[in-house]
Amino acid sequence: MLRVCLVGLLFSSALVPALPAAAQAPQLSETAVAKAAALRDQALAGNAAYVLVESLTTEVGARMPATEADARAVEWTKAKFAGLGYDRVWTEAVTFPVWRRGPERADVLAPFAQPLLVTALGGSVGTGDHPVEAQVVGFADLAELEAAPDGSLDGKIAYIGYRMLRFRDGRGYGPAVAARSRGPSVASAKGASALLIRSIGTDSHRFPHTGMMSYADGVTPIPAAALSNPDADQIERLLGRGQPIRVRLDLDVGFDGEYTSHNVIGEVTGRSLPEDVVVIGGHLDSWDLGTGAIDDGAGVAITMAAGALIAGLPAADRPARSVRVIAWANEEQGLIGARAYAAAHAGDVARHLIGAESDFGAGRIYALRAGVDEASWPVIERIGHVLAPLGIETQRQGGGPGPDIIPLAEIGMPWAQLAQDGTDYFDYHHTADDTLDKIEPAALDQQVAAYAAFAYLAADTEGQLVAKPRAP
Amino acid sequence: MLRVCLVGLLFSSALVPALPAAAQAPQLSETAVAKAAALRDQALAGNAAYVLVESLTTEVGARMPATEADARAVEWTKAKFAGLGYDRVWTEAVTFPVWRRGPERADVLAPFAQPLLVTALGGSVGTGDHPVEAQVVGFADLAELEAAPDGSLDGKIAYIGYRMLRFRDGRGYGPAVAARSRGPSVASAKGASALLIRSIGTDSHRFPHTGMMSYADGVTPIPAAALSNPDADQIERLLGRGQPIRVRLDLDVGFDGEYTSHNVIGEVTGRSLPEDVVVIGGHLDSWDLGTGAIDDGAGVAITMAAGALIAGLPAADRPARSVRVIAWANEEQGLIGARAYAAAHAGDVARHLIGAESDFGAGRIYALRAGVDEASWPVIERIGHVLAPLGIETQRQGGGPGPDIIPLAEIGMPWAQLAQDGTDYFDYHHTADDTLDKIEPAALDQQVAAYAAFAYLAADTEGQLVAKPRAP
Repeated sequence: MLRVCLVGLLFSSALVPALPAAAQAPQLSETAVAKAAALRDQALAGNAAYVLVESLTTEVGARMPATEADARAVEWTKAKFAGLGYDRVWTEAVTFPVWRRGPERADVLAPFAQPLLVTALGGSVGTGDHPVEAQVVGFADLAELEAAPDGSLDGKIAYIGYRMLRFRDGRGYGPAVAARSRGPSVASAKGASALLIRSIGTDSHRFPHTGMMSYADGVTPIPAAALSNPDADQIERLLGRGQPIRVRLDLDVGFDGEYTSHNVIGEVTGRSLPEDVVVIGGHLDSWDLGTGAIDDGAGVAITMAAGALIAGLPAADRPARSVRVIAWANEEQGLIGARAYAAAHAGDVARHLIGAESDFGAGRIYALRAGVDEASWPVIERIGHVLAPLGIETQRQGGGPGPDIIPLAEIGMPWAQLAQDGTDYFDYHHTADDTLDKIEPAALDQQVAAYAAFAYLAADTEGQLVAKPRAP
Repeated sequence: MLRVCLVGLLFSSALVPALPAAAQAPQLSETAVAKAAALRDQALAGNAAYVLVESLTTEVGARMPATEADARAVEWTKAKFAGLGYDRVWTEAVTFPVWRRGPERADVLAPFAQPLLVTALGGSVGTGDHPVEAQVVGFADLAELEAAPDGSLDGKIAYIGYRMLRFRDGRGYGPAVAARSRGPSVASAKGASALLIRSIGTDSHRFPHTGMMSYADGVTPIPAAALSNPDADQIERLLGRGQPIRVRLDLDVGFDGEYTSHNVIGEVTGRSLPEDVVVIGGHLDSWDLGTGAIDDGAGVAITMAAGALIAGLPAADRPARSVRVIAWANEEQGLIGARAYAAAHAGDVARHLIGAESDFGAGRIYALRAGVDEASWPVIERIGHVLAPLGIETQRQGGGPGPDIIPLAEIGMPWAQLAQDGTDYFDYHHTADDTLDKIEPAALDQQVAAYAAFAYLAADTEGQLVAKPRAP
């Protein structure tokens, strides 16, 4: 996941289109609750999501946007939706610039020659025909780099050493990721010829963590890369010795042309309001280094399996609305598929009752949160009662929409968050080590149970949910 | 460590040179015990070994035999011995063939194209001008490969999937490592054009584990490499789908010329029998992938720090014999430094009272074992009493000498083993992830305490220790 602004998103009420006035507060029937509870228990007895993520990560593997595997992943998803009994399967085109990664290498040249394990940040320019060779200047964090005088880094490589902190809810990511997203522009503005950062990750293994960045308007693009955390430790030990540290950085990366991929959508038709939808999903793309198991093969698999359970119900037992499962294209490079979807569906956003994305790994869900108004809250509470036996607590405060839900939430769609335990998520996030062995099958079943019950109940809600109004 | 035959080594008494007949059973004085206990407690209050291994892994880093860093490591060690107050510091030359590693890469070509993380086994030939492209045939273990009909692998890549088991004492290594050491020859004899193995390691991270192999006489050398354990899982999932799996393997590795490195030796002169020595040490070389922190920077640092404590004693408090700390050259490619030392010192092996090497990571010592005869055993028991407060149990059975002690033990030197907890040793062994962060400083202090007390007491033993005779 990219996770641009997960926590604290506030909506401008001016952006929220007029919704049909609800005749009364929305509610759920006891029949719906009973059917959702049965789906939940059915999911716990299955292994459908693990089978899907095993297939995706084995038969497609890494799914970097604009690669041959991106196209293979689209075909895989269409075939799986059809095979799982979804009523409608279609794709929506998404076009974006191609960023490619070739060989990349970094070495300490002096005073203690040795290789460093490094990976370019997504969106970085390469080093061109001649590697960057320069002295490294260290900064504890982005703020310290910002405080450096303009021009003070002329001909130098800046290094930012901020260490991400580990939390269940991943709240260490926000303070850390600024070094990645904004660091290259700040370093360039100070005159640096390249930027190295400590990986945005909580592990102590020699996996550099990639992830997206972009250059601010007007700055000269400079190459930017992450060191694995042990290599960052090493650079800091070297800097601590007080001698000038010279590093050579050689990155064969950059943008080249355009590519058209697709959001892949499977829908289970609703019983009585088939034009109205509840959205769940994950993003189909991954970074190139791992096989995208926890980011976000798991989310795609969990939500596809949840929808498949609903697709397997007799027509009369279907929820009122349709359940739309979206495998978004190119989330990693800037929510590109999600923004395309929101733009294409801006006219019918009011028919999107609520949306939830699974994009925070494969750890069990521990909380249900939602961005709905007070009148809608009893429906969330009722859903929470059905999820409670899964160890899920309903929380009134905090949270935010999954990244690919943000563009829809910005135009008024209510969101829910089935918050996953992300304690170890950032050990693997955006690294070569994001592979199937990091997923516990039983944890996926718990999540399929939660998504199936959530989607069923949301889709069978009587009346409308309304997004939480902007804080005064 | 290479660990060729750590457990179960038996000595031919024919190889044991005549030793001076001991007038009486060897023993230790209470004075010696008191001084050793004081050294032990002094070590626990220090951090000398961590300082050394931090310096070695930071200022030299990886120390692959025959690289520029090999020479740098020799200079580092000479300077540290001198700085630590050793009385004599010298080097002994060791010449060996140069094996070099260049770029290496593997890819699944069909039916599901994707990269695999791979590293060549040490001693492997490269793939030459044209990568090997062939179908993969899987085998559960080396025995299954050995049972394949001759010629049945013509034009194929053999894959061995044996999974190493985790134990505190590392006994899972022996059954696993045969696939690495002998697998290439067996695969070649069956007609295979290359061999891939599951890494000899207990982790589930995407680090391939390197390590030495050699070709049996008469077989055609074929390229051989290890997949990381998650990549081995992936190959097995692919093979399990029943379609032919084609892989391309491209390894730029091989032997090229000769190099002369050095065993580096520091000695603390004994009080009354300075020509007689107790040997402790570790190996100075490492593989190229990591920085050789646990294999074997830790062992070098622990034993250098232990010797330094003895060097710091007033002359009158020194033990009778000298304490010789050896930083062996090129252990990884076949105990090359240790064999050179044993050959050079065969004539005075009887003056080597006992030897112990630290080469099993940085985990705490939990057992003292020794290869001595019954008459010598009371001395080992007495040493064990001094080590007991460190959580170390004296064990009559099992164990074996550290790898670089083997050549001396083969010509009659008694050995001791200060057995380290290796529960996680094979998570990092021979990978890029063998870095300083894997070492707990306090665990090093415990080991310095044990080695200092052991070396002091052994060196102050009254009378001779005698190697355990060959089992009848």
